[in-house]
Amino acid sequence: MTIHFEEQIAEMERGADEVLLLDDLKKKLRRGTPLHIKAGFDPTAPDLHLGHTVLLNKMRQFQQLGHNVTFLIGDFTGLIGDPTGRNATRPALTPAEIQENARTYSTQVFKILDRERTRIDFNSRWLAPLTAADIVKLAAHYTVARMLERDDFARRYRSGQPISIHEFLYPLAQGYDSVMMRADVELGGTDQKFNLLVGRTLQEAYGQEPQVVLTMPLLEGTDGVNKMSKSLGNYIGVTEDPDSMFGKLMSISDTLMWRYFQLLSFRPLSEIDALRRAAQEGRNPRDIKFELAREITTRFHDAAAAARAQANFIARVSDKAVPQDLPVKVLAVAPQGLRVANLLKEAGLAASTSEGNRKIDEGAVRIDGERVADRALTLKPGLTLVVQVGSKRFARVRLEPQTP
Amino acid sequence: MTIHFEEQIAEMERGADEVLLLDDLKKKLRRGTPLHIKAGFDPTAPDLHLGHTVLLNKMRQFQQLGHNVTFLIGDFTGLIGDPTGRNATRPALTPAEIQENARTYSTQVFKILDRERTRIDFNSRWLAPLTAADIVKLAAHYTVARMLERDDFARRYRSGQPISIHEFLYPLAQGYDSVMMRADVELGGTDQKFNLLVGRTLQEAYGQEPQVVLTMPLLEGTDGVNKMSKSLGNYIGVTEDPDSMFGKLMSISDTLMWRYFQLLSFRPLSEIDALRRAAQEGRNPRDIKFELAREITTRFHDAAAAARAQANFIARVSDKAVPQDLPVKVLAVAPQGLRVANLLKEAGLAASTSEGNRKIDEGAVRIDGERVADRALTLKPGLTLVVQVGSKRFARVRLEPQTP
Repeated sequence: MTIHFEEQIAEMERGADEVLLLDDLKKKLRRGTPLHIKAGFDPTAPDLHLGHTVLLNKMRQFQQLGHNVTFLIGDFTGLIGDPTGRNATRPALTPAEIQENARTYSTQVFKILDRERTRIDFNSRWLAPLTAADIVKLAAHYTVARMLERDDFARRYRSGQPISIHEFLYPLAQGYDSVMMRADVELGGTDQKFNLLVGRTLQEAYGQEPQVVLTMPLLEGTDGVNKMSKSLGNYIGVTEDPDSMFGKLMSISDTLMWRYFQLLSFRPLSEIDALRRAAQEGRNPRDIKFELAREITTRFHDAAAAARAQANFIARVSDKAVPQDLPVKVLAVAPQGLRVANLLKEAGLAASTSEGNRKIDEGAVRIDGERVADRALTLKPGLTLVVQVGSKRFARVRLEPQTP
Repeated sequence: MTIHFEEQIAEMERGADEVLLLDDLKKKLRRGTPLHIKAGFDPTAPDLHLGHTVLLNKMRQFQQLGHNVTFLIGDFTGLIGDPTGRNATRPALTPAEIQENARTYSTQVFKILDRERTRIDFNSRWLAPLTAADIVKLAAHYTVARMLERDDFARRYRSGQPISIHEFLYPLAQGYDSVMMRADVELGGTDQKFNLLVGRTLQEAYGQEPQVVLTMPLLEGTDGVNKMSKSLGNYIGVTEDPDSMFGKLMSISDTLMWRYFQLLSFRPLSEIDALRRAAQEGRNPRDIKFELAREITTRFHDAAAAARAQANFIARVSDKAVPQDLPVKVLAVAPQGLRVANLLKEAGLAASTSEGNRKIDEGAVRIDGERVADRALTLKPGLTLVVQVGSKRFARVRLEPQTP
């Protein structure tokens, strides 16, 4: 029983940035009743990538340990939009649009979450009916000085960039969510830590036991450097087709692979430890990466699709006349990346970049088996690639970030 | 016509601390339509003294020039009370209590204001129905940095004293009042200047022409030093009986008398100038002070009561065997004041303070004709008094503030 409890704690802490406070979490767990777990999501961007799923995976973990999870859609702010009118990308959403986003969300998140143990809720339910007097009372529970301690507020205040007073109301609204939900634990990204702690303060002000705050790190993208983001192009979307998803997972570095195992795999920590020992004893990292890519691709498609994606990957990259013993050439690459023509030249596959570009135009260049059609394609540091010109000239290249 | 306009402006500026902006005021006046004048009052303390009437007099002036005045009772904050619970003296008021306070107010203010041109309104009418979304939008129109420029906020923030976030909402609510009322001019005490300017900002944000802000100074109390305040004991209440009101007005210094003429008298500036010239030409200041005391006492009672009060005053002080040629003895007095026994000693009416106290106990001591019963009675600087022991010994004493 004690061992079981400690294992639970270890899984809950797995991959977490911080748990505030671990002792509070243990105290709540020891009571033996299911906890109320809260995690908030933006109502505007329902197109998830693996970076978003780090939090969902943590929610799933709590579900598997018998707790109740609320997937809270922060639609109150979405209904308001950006009241300053400065942010063109944040117009007010209609309730219908928000419902539509919520539907899209749920088709994606139930690949991970247990539908039976998930409650989807909307914070406009309790925030919209608040009166002016309620807001004044809410705002009385927090001071200006503490709010200005939040990193981004502090920076903007110091540098003279304006902070509108309504921006102070959002953390309070988010904290009030915890009060209304009587949350025991709130999960969030590490960048949300301040707001999550406001929830603790407000719960105490409203006479409740404060929630435990558990923050998860931001997942690195396939480049292993920047956080996963659609705009940086280093993301793996949860709706991507199996071949693309599998291929992108196989492209990550061996170091990043262990990070992904920790944050994305559903395997227990003991199994991951076993894989790590196997790698130390000489098992090919590629085969271990296959395990990861199979698991993730199965999750968002199915086992058969994942098996086919693996077969396709092997056919495309490993078997197609690529010499098995090709050595790895390491290239230092600037953060903005490397054009393909430069890659060909530096890998010794073209005499000059203009020859490289000519080869691209001729359709003779392939990267990981895929034909390159665009001279402008840029490759970011963090990738290991098989580059090919025609059917005879190959190089296996690892693009490493330039050390400053 | 032009002269008339300039005279209007001169009366509007009379006694004002600041007019922001005078050019805006002229522009609004030149349109020739009656202006909407706003002045806000606290819903908790309806017991007025002459200090409060400085603002009412300014409102009356605008009424007499043909403008419409709203006496706005800021009941919204009164309905909330102090949400931090730190301020025991500010519990939430019920709507019935606020209505009762408003009734008390109006019995007092219509001694000054023109009932026909006064609208009494309550800001809870538009503030209470605001939704959470409305408040967020309102708060978006003002920045944290500008709010922290308000003197008291700046001081508290610098010195590490807490400012609750709801305190930032009150100036916004007050400014929103101006929006809802489409105020052309807001009148207020000089300590309200910041809040009144928030009204300008918000009106512009809501697409309105910004209001003119006209601030009035805080009236000095009868001591001529501190602002008039019930707790300092230097006040003249508007419901005081005629004798008390008349007597207190006669006790003020000659310098303060001109201040009171400017801020409390309804006489036009030209008449006051004439009185000032008469004083310079040797008219007894006491007689000029009679004019002031008669005017004010008539305002809050009636002409007959004021005449009786003057007769009583003369009988009590001037005629009752007090030698007409009694010279004025000037005594320097510390801010905390002087006990009567010490006064008797310093004025040469008793050999020692113990003799002075004995005389008080014997009932032999009178000040301005009134018998002194209490040894603890303390006289503050700023008064001119006739002190009497028995029926033969007199002194006319002016108590002046000690120079540091």
